[in-house]
Amino acid sequence: MQQISFYQEVFLNYLETFKVQKEPANLYNPINYILSLGGKRLRPVLTLMTSDIFSGDHQKALDAALSIEVFHNFSLIHDDIMDDAPLRRGNETVHEKWDINTGILSGDAMLILAYQLFENYESEIFKDLAKLFSKTALEVCEGQQYDIDFETRDDVTIAEYLKMIEYKTAVLIGAAMKMGAIVAQASKEDQDRIYDFGKNLGVAFQLQDDYLDAFGDPKTFGKQVGGDIIENKKTYLYLKGLEMASSDSRNQLQGFYSAKTNDAGEKIEAVKTIFADSGSADATKLAIKEYTEKAFSMLDNLDISADKKQLLRAFGEQLMNRTV
Amino acid sequence: MQQISFYQEVFLNYLETFKVQKEPANLYNPINYILSLGGKRLRPVLTLMTSDIFSGDHQKALDAALSIEVFHNFSLIHDDIMDDAPLRRGNETVHEKWDINTGILSGDAMLILAYQLFENYESEIFKDLAKLFSKTALEVCEGQQYDIDFETRDDVTIAEYLKMIEYKTAVLIGAAMKMGAIVAQASKEDQDRIYDFGKNLGVAFQLQDDYLDAFGDPKTFGKQVGGDIIENKKTYLYLKGLEMASSDSRNQLQGFYSAKTNDAGEKIEAVKTIFADSGSADATKLAIKEYTEKAFSMLDNLDISADKKQLLRAFGEQLMNRTV
Repeated sequence: MQQISFYQEVFLNYLETFKVQKEPANLYNPINYILSLGGKRLRPVLTLMTSDIFSGDHQKALDAALSIEVFHNFSLIHDDIMDDAPLRRGNETVHEKWDINTGILSGDAMLILAYQLFENYESEIFKDLAKLFSKTALEVCEGQQYDIDFETRDDVTIAEYLKMIEYKTAVLIGAAMKMGAIVAQASKEDQDRIYDFGKNLGVAFQLQDDYLDAFGDPKTFGKQVGGDIIENKKTYLYLKGLEMASSDSRNQLQGFYSAKTNDAGEKIEAVKTIFADSGSADATKLAIKEYTEKAFSMLDNLDISADKKQLLRAFGEQLMNRTV
Repeated sequence: MQQISFYQEVFLNYLETFKVQKEPANLYNPINYILSLGGKRLRPVLTLMTSDIFSGDHQKALDAALSIEVFHNFSLIHDDIMDDAPLRRGNETVHEKWDINTGILSGDAMLILAYQLFENYESEIFKDLAKLFSKTALEVCEGQQYDIDFETRDDVTIAEYLKMIEYKTAVLIGAAMKMGAIVAQASKEDQDRIYDFGKNLGVAFQLQDDYLDAFGDPKTFGKQVGGDIIENKKTYLYLKGLEMASSDSRNQLQGFYSAKTNDAGEKIEAVKTIFADSGSADATKLAIKEYTEKAFSMLDNLDISADKKQLLRAFGEQLMNRTV
C-alpha cells in the first residue's frame, strides 16, 4: 500500500488518457472540462487503495476508479443545475459556461460512460460492478430528491436527515471502496465490510462538513464559514439544535431560518451561539465520533494484515482530523 | 409469432408491475406518469417479437423490452426540457407538470433503472445487453447533440443529417431488436443482421416522418402538418431541396427558413411547392424506399424460417405504409 499522493498521481495520469477529443465537441468538451477542475479525487483514490489492500494490484482497479469519478462529476453537473450554482471549485459551472441543455446532455453522457468503463472486466466482475453502481447511483438520486424535498418541509427528523446524507454522499464512498474489493476478488464478506467502513466514514465525513461549515476556521476552511446558516440549510446541527434548545432558543432559531433577510454576520453568530449553548455542537461532534468508530469497528473482521488495517484506520483519522 | 397487438398487451401488463409506489414520491411519480402516457410501444414490441422469432419465448425478453421503453421515456423527459416542449402525447410534459429539476432527476433515475432491468439475466447475457445499451444510449445522446448543433448551422450536409437521425432514432430500433436476439441467444451473426434490419428500418421510419410532416394527410397525421416547416427544421426534404432546387428557388427556400414571421399557411404551401417542384419530395420517397429495401435485404441470410422472415417483412411494410 502506498501514500494517498501516490494514488492521486496514478489516477490523474489515467484520467488524462480518458480526456480525448471526440465528436460532437459540444457534448464531450464539457465532460473534459468538469473532469479537469481538480478536487482531491478522494473516491477513485479509495478504489485504488482498497484494491491494493486486497490484491496488491491497483492497476486493475483503474477503470472502476475512473467510473466512480465520472459518476461523481455527472452528479455535480446535474446538481449544480438544480441548485443554480454559478461556481464549482472556483470555476464556472458547466451550465454557466455553456447552458442548461448542455449540462443536462453532457451529464447524461457521463452517466453512460461510467457504465462503459466496466466493460474491460470479465462478465462476473462486470455484473457485480454494474449492479453495485446502479444501486448506488439510484440511492444518490434518491438522496438528492430528499435534500430538495427537505428545503420546503419543516418537520424533517434527524433519522430522515441521516438517511438523506447516507444516500446522497456516504453510499458512494462505500461503493468506491467496495469496487476496489470486487476487482481484487476479495470475499463477499470483506466486500460488505469495506463497504460499511466507507459508508459510515462517509456519514461521519458529511456530519463533519456540517460542523465545519459553522465552526471551522475561516483561515483554513475552503468555503465561506456560515454558508449553510445563510442558506437556512437544515443540517444535523440545526435539527439537533431544534431538539435540544430551550423553548425560547428554539423559537429564535426557527425565526432565523424562516427569514431571508437579517444581517448575515449577526445571524451566523446568533445561530452558532444557539448551536453551542443548546449542546447541539457537542452532540454533532459526538455523532461524528460514533460514526467514525462504527467505521473502524468494521475493520476488525477483515481478512487482511494488521498493518493494512492500521493504514485504513490512519486514512480515516486523517480524513476526520481535517480542518478544511 | 403473434400479432403486434398481442405483444402490446403482454408488454402493457408487464409495465403495470413496474409502476410501484416508491419513495421519494417526487422522484418516482414522474416516472410512473411518463410511462402511463401511452404510445405504440413500438420498441418493446420489437424486442418481444424478435425474441419469439429466435427462441419462441418472448417472456424471457420482458425485462429487456421494459429497459428499452424506460430508456426511451428517459430520453423523452430530457429532450422535452431541452426543446421547452409543453406537451407530450397530448399531456403535460414532466417539467411542465412538475418542474425542470424534477425532470432532470427523474430522468437520471430512469436511465439507471433501465440498466437495473438487465440484472435478472445471467452474467454473459447481462454484459452483452448492458454493452449494447451503453453504446446505443451514448449514440442517442450524440444524435441529440448533433440535432441541437444543426439548428444554428447553415452548412449541414445530407450525410450529416442521415448520421444524426441514425443516432437519434434508428440505433434504438436496431438495439431493441438485437436485445430480443441476445436474450434468445441467437448467433452473433443473426444478432448483427437483425440490428441492421432494425436500424435501416429506423432511418426509413424517420425519413417517412419528415415526409409525412409536409405531405401527410391532415385528417390522419397525428401532429400538425407543416410543423417542421414552421420550425425551420432542416429535414431531409429541406436539405435535398437546397441541393436540387434552381438557384431562385433555393434562395426563396433559404429566405423562408431564415425568417421567423410570414403567414404560416402561406409559408407551408410555398415551401411544399419547392419541395415538390425541385424533386426533393420524390428523392425523399426514393430514400425511404432504399432504406426499407436495405433493411429487407438483411433478412436474406437470417437463420430463421421463411414464414418468420415474411412476418418481419410484413411488419416493416406495415410500418412503412402508415399514413400517420
